[in-house]
Amino acid sequence: MKPTKKAVVLLSGGLDSTTVLYYALRKEYDCHCLLFDYGQRHARELNAAKKIAARASCPFTVVKLGLPWGGSALLDKRQEVRSSKKHAGLHGLPATYVPGRNTIFLSYALSYAETIAASTLFIGANAVDYSGYPDCRPEYYRAWQNLLKSLGLKIRIEVPLIHLTKSDIVKLGTKLGVPYKDTWSCYKGGKTPCGVCDSCLFRAKGFREAGLSDPALTS
Amino acid sequence: MKPTKKAVVLLSGGLDSTTVLYYALRKEYDCHCLLFDYGQRHARELNAAKKIAARASCPFTVVKLGLPWGGSALLDKRQEVRSSKKHAGLHGLPATYVPGRNTIFLSYALSYAETIAASTLFIGANAVDYSGYPDCRPEYYRAWQNLLKSLGLKIRIEVPLIHLTKSDIVKLGTKLGVPYKDTWSCYKGGKTPCGVCDSCLFRAKGFREAGLSDPALTS
Repeated sequence: MKPTKKAVVLLSGGLDSTTVLYYALRKEYDCHCLLFDYGQRHARELNAAKKIAARASCPFTVVKLGLPWGGSALLDKRQEVRSSKKHAGLHGLPATYVPGRNTIFLSYALSYAETIAASTLFIGANAVDYSGYPDCRPEYYRAWQNLLKSLGLKIRIEVPLIHLTKSDIVKLGTKLGVPYKDTWSCYKGGKTPCGVCDSCLFRAKGFREAGLSDPALTS
Repeated sequence: MKPTKKAVVLLSGGLDSTTVLYYALRKEYDCHCLLFDYGQRHARELNAAKKIAARASCPFTVVKLGLPWGGSALLDKRQEVRSSKKHAGLHGLPATYVPGRNTIFLSYALSYAETIAASTLFIGANAVDYSGYPDCRPEYYRAWQNLLKSLGLKIRIEVPLIHLTKSDIVKLGTKLGVPYKDTWSCYKGGKTPCGVCDSCLFRAKGFREAGLSDPALTS
């Protein structure tokens, strides 16, 4: 029987959001994946997300975002992505910080959830092994829940990974059968992950501490 | 001397947002207008906004929004815009309600404000003579302020019209020299305003109660 609980899952194609998708599926949600094409430097991440959604037999929708002001090394091909490099002028944040990114993503997710009458929004934010983005912290999601309440919406935001370490996430996902081979975490878009950006480093730490090898690196 | 307080002003080209722009200019803000091309049924509103920003000598940026799921008579040309017609299935809201619209607008505005280091966001929401959209109510803007705080941002949201009647707005704008002739409020995109949609009715009521004639109707 088809599950009746409908959820919108923000899927980037990375390790965290893919784990969240499998978590929501295990909880028997009817998952509708929301993907964003926001002028990332490379298409690898988006292609990974499409493949993952299709493999999990979940419908997905791609939102094409216009962000005319750029402002991040993840968008601007002229800026270099470096581990821990600070953002030019923005509160000492990493160069990979996209101003308002999760807020824009969640506002679309809210619009979509309202339209398809979903009860729950899943997002793979994590505030333990992360780049320090302010839109990954628990208080931000509490404020979002409050915003939904102010709109009279009974939509719940679930952030199941928020307090997990990267290795906890890898262990959870491995139990859930997440196809980590298909996920893409690297901020760059090379043939293989660069191994030196923040995202690669956190991922490697996660697999190492979980005592597992990363299937994306062993193909 | 150029004002140093920078603001992002959400400008739709309608009566309310144009009044807010002139209000912010009077308060000596350096106003950067944010316009949205979100697949409205007609281009009149967007063209009005461009004209108004240019006339006020304010820089403006147009964000092209992809909203693949439609869900409103303001987007879907197959749905009829009628006064007080209820939305199909969405909490008994008017057919013109776009799910999450102001939330998406504000999330872009936040991203833009952060990028250009603006201190203030101005939005022309009004909870007196309005269509009953939940994203026009004071508690929603309080929740937004709280969301910005959770991100560690010192950006203030100003909603100066929230408690004004339409006639108060018209009186205020007239004092501020708002070129109401250039504004466009009608939900439809005819040569002249339809005079029967919610937006036309509220506008007419505003001018009537202010004892003024609408310059957009007398050309």
